[in-house]
Amino acid sequence: MQNFRFLNKTEIIFGKDTQKEVGAEVKKHGSKVLLHYGSGHIKKSGLYDEVIESLNESNVDFIELGGVKPNPRLALVREGIALCREHKVDFILSVGGGSVIDSAKAIAVGARYDGDVWDFFYDKAVIKQAIPNGVVLTIPAAGSESSDGSVITDLPNKNKRHIGSPLIIPTFAIMNPELTYTLPAYQTACGTSDIMAHVMERYFTNVKDVDFTDRLCESTLKTMIHNAPLALANPSDYASRSEIMWAGTLAHNNLLDTGREGDWSTHMIEHEISGINDVAHGAGLSIVFPAYLKYVYKHDIARFVQFAVRVWNVDQSFGNPEQTALEGIARLESFLKSLGLPTMLSQIDLDESSFERIATNCRKTNDDGVGYFVKLYEQDIKNILKLAL
Amino acid sequence: MQNFRFLNKTEIIFGKDTQKEVGAEVKKHGSKVLLHYGSGHIKKSGLYDEVIESLNESNVDFIELGGVKPNPRLALVREGIALCREHKVDFILSVGGGSVIDSAKAIAVGARYDGDVWDFFYDKAVIKQAIPNGVVLTIPAAGSESSDGSVITDLPNKNKRHIGSPLIIPTFAIMNPELTYTLPAYQTACGTSDIMAHVMERYFTNVKDVDFTDRLCESTLKTMIHNAPLALANPSDYASRSEIMWAGTLAHNNLLDTGREGDWSTHMIEHEISGINDVAHGAGLSIVFPAYLKYVYKHDIARFVQFAVRVWNVDQSFGNPEQTALEGIARLESFLKSLGLPTMLSQIDLDESSFERIATNCRKTNDDGVGYFVKLYEQDIKNILKLAL
Repeated sequence: MQNFRFLNKTEIIFGKDTQKEVGAEVKKHGSKVLLHYGSGHIKKSGLYDEVIESLNESNVDFIELGGVKPNPRLALVREGIALCREHKVDFILSVGGGSVIDSAKAIAVGARYDGDVWDFFYDKAVIKQAIPNGVVLTIPAAGSESSDGSVITDLPNKNKRHIGSPLIIPTFAIMNPELTYTLPAYQTACGTSDIMAHVMERYFTNVKDVDFTDRLCESTLKTMIHNAPLALANPSDYASRSEIMWAGTLAHNNLLDTGREGDWSTHMIEHEISGINDVAHGAGLSIVFPAYLKYVYKHDIARFVQFAVRVWNVDQSFGNPEQTALEGIARLESFLKSLGLPTMLSQIDLDESSFERIATNCRKTNDDGVGYFVKLYEQDIKNILKLAL
Repeated sequence: MQNFRFLNKTEIIFGKDTQKEVGAEVKKHGSKVLLHYGSGHIKKSGLYDEVIESLNESNVDFIELGGVKPNPRLALVREGIALCREHKVDFILSVGGGSVIDSAKAIAVGARYDGDVWDFFYDKAVIKQAIPNGVVLTIPAAGSESSDGSVITDLPNKNKRHIGSPLIIPTFAIMNPELTYTLPAYQTACGTSDIMAHVMERYFTNVKDVDFTDRLCESTLKTMIHNAPLALANPSDYASRSEIMWAGTLAHNNLLDTGREGDWSTHMIEHEISGINDVAHGAGLSIVFPAYLKYVYKHDIARFVQFAVRVWNVDQSFGNPEQTALEGIARLESFLKSLGLPTMLSQIDLDESSFERIATNCRKTNDDGVGYFVKLYEQDIKNILKLAL
């Protein structure tokens, strides 16, 4: 196990009707608030009205900025920053999924910085301040409600970039599983893929003696494998919706990689794909992850056997560990398919002509190779993509 | 799953040599510090000198109070409170195990209260303020390094009582598994029993649909079952010592009971036993827990089958769930024995003549019966104790 520091300051407020507490929560932290949200979904569902009512009841002074799109855009972030400066905003409330929260986090750091926010995404500046932010979560997927990360897309330049800082970890996250009943099946499936990918990025590590966190990761994956099909079969099933929602947060609040080093190359490859293709992040991951695992499993067969046996209940072939390892990957792939997710690039109309660009972009900011479990170079990335054709 | 709030503000600083960071950490939080510790062990091991050196290097102004004993005493708490008031202490640093930390927490609340600290332990006053506290942990067991609880014993009156408040959760916990190499085998075993009990108190719940936290509990128990024998066989094994130490913290920082309701009757019964007998808490628990489980398993056989199969790898008798349930309890008991722990009251020289007193004391502050999984009344408690004879 490696040395580590762990602290997560997000207060989780979980359960039925908790969105009604948002006004009182916001009031504790801010006097001038930016309410940030996405498209019309929260207006149709009535959540928008509930949030406004709660904010008004608590006499919260707020301004609004809606319109966040999936793969949230730099242009809107810049608009938010200008608004925050103009109105001296001291707290940002996101109502939505990972895209809205990521957008809010980027606004939060940009508004407290004299230069352009995009500097942070190219390591040209270090995050030293941020407006505090809070969340009403509607989509369990990105884990952004309690994570230190934000991913923003510069659409005109087809560029998707990431920042990370403890300063952007939300102060609170209000999570009512009932708010996820109306998610389309495809979005529930994409969220499942994203959550499982967050765990698997951490699971495939070269750090030895990580028994406890291995087991916590396996528990989180098994929870998703058990509950995602139940939620798809019965979208208003509180039990499975709540398991998924809580697992989605713990999958990405840094608890599961205490003492380990994760890989993250699948996320990096997927970011390049969805930067040029605008595919949903979870769908991009369901294509890349099985291909990635098929490409790297020989690096540590014992770990892949553990993954197969403990996570996928594969009946172990003791004399043929490779067979067991491959069966685990096959079960992951077939599970993702069963959720209605794509597992091949052809399903999102991406062919070999994009491989060079994806590989080059991935490597551009990773001089030392992409990922930590196995270092990937241009040809490796192209080989992985070929396995997903 | 029940609605819940979860926030744990302890920054975990984990790994080799981390005790050297204590001065810098304390300096962030306090200007006048009480250094609190136990008997001579930290002086013999050299840890005391390391801590003093680090505090001096960071120019921390501190006073000292040593002498905390297992089952920490109210008298020393009162002494600490007087010291804190006299020297206007604004931060308390504990160096030791759960007893030292619990003692520090009681001092922390008592020093910021005009009445007598014992009021809090009888719900005669509500905790509204506390001096912040930090920890250098030497014994993985009580989980006090990141918990909201403290247990203090009024020895002259043989009275052991508990308080809980988010205000006493430590600000940081420095955890170097190497510091646990010199623990006597019996103390390692007692710590294991305590950690497992913290998980099992949460595991046996009447709340339905708690799949994810069930699995996290099971992972924590399996981690202890796998690693405790390794640490006993090789006390300087960093791998197993680190798994035990990290599991011990997560077992009791409230993560594992998010959305559930724990039982805690075993802890309440054990507190009465160690209040009159001064047996180590973990040893008291290893006596009471198997007996308790044998007494209540019929209340929810399915849950006990799950415990047996998932935690103890019992080969399930599908046609005879009771047999499977009992085999799980038997394996727990035999595991505790294998660690060198007592599992019968006769081993700590306690006989039936004390049962009345234990049962009456337990019930005294629990009008509505003891525990939440199954409500226990005087006769139930006596029956459980009989099963442990």
